[in-house]
Amino acid sequence: MPIVQIDLLEGRTTEQKRVLAEKVTQAIEESIGATPESISIIIRDMAKENYAKAGKLACDK
Amino acid sequence: MPIVQIDLLEGRTTEQKRVLAEKVTQAIEESIGATPESISIIIRDMAKENYAKAGKLACDK
Amino acid sequence: MPIVQIDLLEGRTTEQKRVLAEKVTQAIEESIGATPESISIIIRDMAKENYAKAGKLACDK
Amino acid sequence: MPIVQIDLLEGRTTEQKRVLAEKVTQAIEESIGATPESISIIIRDMAKENYAKAGKLACDK
Amino acid sequence: MPIVQIDLLEGRTTEQKRVLAEKVTQAIEESIGATPESISIIIRDMAKENYAKAGKLACDK
Amino acid sequence: MPIVQIDLLEGRTTEQKRVLAEKVTQAIEESIGATPESISIIIRDMAKENYAKAGKLACDK
Repeated sequence: MPIVQIDLLEGRTTEQKRVLAEKVTQAIEESIGATPESISIIIRDMAKENYAKAGKLACDK
Repeated sequence: MPIVQIDLLEGRTTEQKRVLAEKVTQAIEESIGATPESISIIIRDMAKENYAKAGKLACDK
Repeated sequence: MPIVQIDLLEGRTTEQKRVLAEKVTQAIEESIGATPESISIIIRDMAKENYAKAGKLACDK
Repeated sequence: MPIVQIDLLEGRTTEQKRVLAEKVTQAIEESIGATPESISIIIRDMAKENYAKAGKLACDK
Repeated sequence: MPIVQIDLLEGRTTEQKRVLAEKVTQAIEESIGATPESISIIIRDMAKENYAKAGKLACDK
Repeated sequence: MPIVQIDLLEGRTTEQKRVLAEKVTQAIEESIGATPESISIIIRDMAKENYAKAGKLACDK
């Protein structure tokens, strides 16, 4: 039943997301013993104007 | 004050979302006695490359 | 694959949550045609000091 | 370590988001004493068909 | 309609949260012109074993 | 800047969360090339009455 939400700056390829989904699923399986079938992952692409650190948008850095 | 977030695979029509919003609001009203005015719903459309189950992206199934 | 997150002020009984889960699942099934098995719901209980509207905590109203 | 997620109806300019990020970061810094560097903000733009209040989509109002 | 979710390490007082809610609401009002009544804030307290940076739990630092 | 939120059924030990944080951080690093320092993870423990699949609370299964 683990549900994972991952917010990333946009620009990742489908292949990168494919590997991300595989590896994160495996990481959860190995660490807490959840079955892969029970693990859902949502990836969210953030535009650079939609993420800020220390009060500054990523598009301004 | 209930705040609802619903992640769906992309491809739903506005009409489907309209019915979704109505019915989910009613479901919450009936089950916990919240007033409709107090219920907010956020719908998020997931691209098929942004959702994975069992380590596999939805676009690869 | 719909994933639902519902934030509620604390104080709901397990029976209310039971009905909530049933009815929201049914609402999604009927509106967008998802199978019940594909629908996950996370309920989050908010303490009254953890929710604010119009700049005022719920515990202060 | 504060992590902030802000869902807004779409249509805000980058300049509005820039000011939003600055001011929200400052508000958190002043109220709980977190350093700006530790504060992350995610902004999410909601299409009007993806937000509902009282069971009605924002695009129908 | 802005909906704000703020994850904080546990340990903040109700008074700190009160000020946080006031100031964040004002920051959003001033930056994007939303009315205070339309702004909802959810605060989530994270236990130190439930937050990690650089792969390390906050309780281990 | 990846921000990860993981919802789990309650009952995991701190040691399991420690390994989870390490392995998920490493999985993200390897798949998309983010630095560990840029990766934040929030773990949320769900009570069994706060998670439902197929309309049924986990505490009823």
